Amino acid sequence: MVLNLSRYLPVLKWGRHYSRQYLLGDVSAAIMVILVLIPQALAYALLAGLPAEVGLYAALLPAVLYALLGTSPVLAVGPVAIVSLMTASAIGQFAAPDPQALALTLALLSGVCLLLMGLLRLGALINFLSYPVLAGFTSASSLLIAANQLPALVGMSSQGHTFPALVMSLWQQGTDWQPATATLGGATLVGLWSIRRYGAAGLSRCGVSSRRAGLIVKLAPALAVIVGVLCVKSGLMPSVALVGAIPDPLPTLTLPPLSWPLLQQLWMPAFLIAVIGFISAIAVAQTLAMKQRQRVDPDQELIALGVANIGASFSGGYPVSGSLARSAVNYEVGAQTAAAGAFTALGLVLGLLVLTPWLAFLPKTVLAATIIVAVLSLVDVKMLITSWHFARDDFIAVAATFSLTLLFGLEAGIVTGAALSIGLFLWHTARPHIAEVGRVPGTQHFRNRYRYRVQTDPTIVMLRPDESLYFANARFLEQHLYDRVVGDAQLRHVVLLCSAVNDIDLSALNSLAAMNLRLKDLGMQLHLAEVKGPVMSRLKRSDLLDVLSGQVFLSAFEAMSHLASQPFDDHDQSRSC
Amino acid sequence: MVLNLSRYLPVLKWGRHYSRQYLLGDVSAAIMVILVLIPQALAYALLAGLPAEVGLYAALLPAVLYALLGTSPVLAVGPVAIVSLMTASAIGQFAAPDPQALALTLALLSGVCLLLMGLLRLGALINFLSYPVLAGFTSASSLLIAANQLPALVGMSSQGHTFPALVMSLWQQGTDWQPATATLGGATLVGLWSIRRYGAAGLSRCGVSSRRAGLIVKLAPALAVIVGVLCVKSGLMPSVALVGAIPDPLPTLTLPPLSWPLLQQLWMPAFLIAVIGFISAIAVAQTLAMKQRQRVDPDQELIALGVANIGASFSGGYPVSGSLARSAVNYEVGAQTAAAGAFTALGLVLGLLVLTPWLAFLPKTVLAATIIVAVLSLVDVKMLITSWHFARDDFIAVAATFSLTLLFGLEAGIVTGAALSIGLFLWHTARPHIAEVGRVPGTQHFRNRYRYRVQTDPTIVMLRPDESLYFANARFLEQHLYDRVVGDAQLRHVVLLCSAVNDIDLSALNSLAAMNLRLKDLGMQLHLAEVKGPVMSRLKRSDLLDVLSGQVFLSAFEAMSHLASQPFDDHDQSRSC
Repeated sequence: MVLNLSRYLPVLKWGRHYSRQYLLGDVSAAIMVILVLIPQALAYALLAGLPAEVGLYAALLPAVLYALLGTSPVLAVGPVAIVSLMTASAIGQFAAPDPQALALTLALLSGVCLLLMGLLRLGALINFLSYPVLAGFTSASSLLIAANQLPALVGMSSQGHTFPALVMSLWQQGTDWQPATATLGGATLVGLWSIRRYGAAGLSRCGVSSRRAGLIVKLAPALAVIVGVLCVKSGLMPSVALVGAIPDPLPTLTLPPLSWPLLQQLWMPAFLIAVIGFISAIAVAQTLAMKQRQRVDPDQELIALGVANIGASFSGGYPVSGSLARSAVNYEVGAQTAAAGAFTALGLVLGLLVLTPWLAFLPKTVLAATIIVAVLSLVDVKMLITSWHFARDDFIAVAATFSLTLLFGLEAGIVTGAALSIGLFLWHTARPHIAEVGRVPGTQHFRNRYRYRVQTDPTIVMLRPDESLYFANARFLEQHLYDRVVGDAQLRHVVLLCSAVNDIDLSALNSLAAMNLRLKDLGMQLHLAEVKGPVMSRLKRSDLLDVLSGQVFLSAFEAMSHLASQPFDDHDQSRSC
Repeated sequence: MVLNLSRYLPVLKWGRHYSRQYLLGDVSAAIMVILVLIPQALAYALLAGLPAEVGLYAALLPAVLYALLGTSPVLAVGPVAIVSLMTASAIGQFAAPDPQALALTLALLSGVCLLLMGLLRLGALINFLSYPVLAGFTSASSLLIAANQLPALVGMSSQGHTFPALVMSLWQQGTDWQPATATLGGATLVGLWSIRRYGAAGLSRCGVSSRRAGLIVKLAPALAVIVGVLCVKSGLMPSVALVGAIPDPLPTLTLPPLSWPLLQQLWMPAFLIAVIGFISAIAVAQTLAMKQRQRVDPDQELIALGVANIGASFSGGYPVSGSLARSAVNYEVGAQTAAAGAFTALGLVLGLLVLTPWLAFLPKTVLAATIIVAVLSLVDVKMLITSWHFARDDFIAVAATFSLTLLFGLEAGIVTGAALSIGLFLWHTARPHIAEVGRVPGTQHFRNRYRYRVQTDPTIVMLRPDESLYFANARFLEQHLYDRVVGDAQLRHVVLLCSAVNDIDLSALNSLAAMNLRLKDLGMQLHLAEVKGPVMSRLKRSDLLDVLSGQVFLSAFEAMSHLASQPFDDHDQSRSC
């Protein structure tokens, strides 16, 4: 019972052995993470179309809940960029007076989706999103995020969740930009970009260890925030748009609003947010866990992230996931247990009580600059070239997902991309390569007769389908066989080499039975060769082997030796006949 | 140009060599087919919820058009049972005053679907309906057809396109059946069933050749029709429901009615009718063609059936397909070319001009009996047992399709069944069998270490995934590998045996690259072995082989010989080291 409980509440495992050393690591990590978190939380909430403080709320209770349930000691749960954009896109479909209420409902629904998938152990469903689809989606949504920040960067207010909508919106606002804001934003952008690009190398040259240099560079956004606030406070920048007074730095616990029509409209975007959020979180958690020779349990992660999202919906937040940047800080500073996340939340509360009056003077353009620098590193154009060289299907999937996401929005992009890649896979397996093979002279090897010089026999055709046989390709094989044998008057034997057949289903069995019968009508025998163990034991449960007009041979060589109308021209044959 | 045209108009091929001998075969076949066709056409039209004469119309122009375009000399195109029930079900969704107009629109849409699939050469799409789904669907819809005829058989008028609806409808009508009708229907049923069951054997015993006996038995429904008409004409059966006067035995050419909302609602059922109709027709055509050492072209068959259906929609018919019973008659009597179909249509016109006054006196219960006997032979309960023994996935597909079709209707059954079987296939390939293998002592063979007594080395783990690697199973393999290696302190080498990997995609390549990196972090090397040619040439187009921490071995044996921490205990090792 205790064992079972600790599977669902990992805190029971590490909590029992919690030591002072753990505490040191966890608290140090929490302090560093908070410095990265504050600008991100404010920025991502604005990106989601929500008040800035909602980002802070989403960093509190969800982080604590994840600390109790999660299996990764370093995953930092809270607001993240892509999930924020997806939230903005889902909310944007409604002309609702209260976007916050929609965000709470979205968080609740995403949480329920994740929790259900975890409890039903359906984590593997996630695998049906292929890498090209995810890469295309991530690149396109990062571009969309960056493009969405451009107006705020120069003091305009347009927004759009697709590329055409954004261009249209900018076009309508014309030249309504503010030079002062644009200057501050541009300077921040260039500064942050330079630090990101050259900071670590520069610090290393000054004798800072490369690991520490990497950490310091991650604090650049916090520095930008401080500089931004000081600029405003000092009166240097009188006219820029500010984050504004944060009414209450701490959330109040409330029930998320529920209504049936709302749930019906939001479940699909919520499901997609859940899936994308989970995929980014699990990738981060697994990468960092492997480095520590630990492992994360995907199904338990689903449960933990599900509960974290449900927690967000009860505490004034919005959908959350695991952050790559903040988890990396946790790992590098040396967080030892999931308690680091709880300490982050605790520290954030204390920090906010002090910092809130200052954050009101933070210019929005500075936040926009931090987002742009953060997400542009996620844009992967090389991927298009890689996939082009590697496989056509992968290129189609990545190109389609990328362009559909940019043109028609996040949901359309990911759904169409996923359907396309599954469809391409099915189409591919439905039309497998079928090689007609012959014997490489003097050996027991058999190769494609149209690629190699091989020995064949006019009375025998040997076909090797390079795929498991199942319903979608069974009739393809049948048709291929009929096309091959009809009209070939010399043929007496058809040998199916099953070396590449990992599995066989009832449809394929029926096709084999039909081929057997029809070939018999034509006076030919059907033989099998190189049948794998699991396939053979399945065939034995049918009556195919009883009615098969030919035989089952262990190898292609054995089949050829046995069936050939004329003896082979070398000594090998004598051995096996 | 001529060649190209004759591909789309096969009549140009056989028409040039048409001889007197062909004519004899075609005309004899046509005469026999007409005798089977008349009762079927009337009965199936009633089954579709349409006036009886619509069945006759559907047997005229479509048959002529198929004769021009089809590639099978024996396929008899016209009304068929399952397509008729599907038509009834599609029409039944509307409380429309004019079911005939809906039937014309359905025929047009099905025809367009078929024609498009044929022109785009998408015949292979059909293959995604697995055999279990088709078998479950055919059995369930045959049961539904038979159950639908029961009320007519006993003189009631209830109808329903699902089992619960039918039971409900019968329940409401209570005991409102007519003894006279039930007697005639029951007698016909028993008579037809006895002839079908024992007729051929009986005739054979009287010295009739078995082929001829089989043919004569097929004419039993025509005999039943004649007996039925005579019963009524002679005044023996005064109160039974009759087919009634056929206003016009010949159709008038009209445009099918078109409206946008109608098209939107009917395209899905029309598409399913097209698919199911095509599958039944192509199965019949291919089976009979193989017996004559000929072949049919599935894409051209799509075009021919598409045009036939469009023809039906312009000549007062309803959706048509190829009939198993009538095509078999064509084949057995010896139809030589597709002209047999045209002669059938011509003969039917002549016959109708004579017979129409008589057909008005045909009791509906006789037609109901002919349908019941015809379709019950399509119910295949054994299939459930076969699939249960063969493979669990196939059993799930057949059981689900069967019960969903009975309970929720034809469309729900086939669509859910198809989605389920595709989903099961994907789920299956997403969680492939991964064997951990070792060397069978004294040989170069490697087998599952948990099934056989094999040699292993504590520093090496050899994994053999039994499936092509693609996005849906790449992360499964990755997770499996991590679960295996984490915590095994002695491990130094991971060897992936790719003997069952027929293909690899970009997602799987990325998983391999990730495994390579993470294993390196753990101080382990990743090796590949037994990589197939196409997979190897694809890997060479990536940078995996450059960054791979281990090597690529030709065989598992070579890998083991090279990597083993201690020498093998037999002489084989010395050879390859």
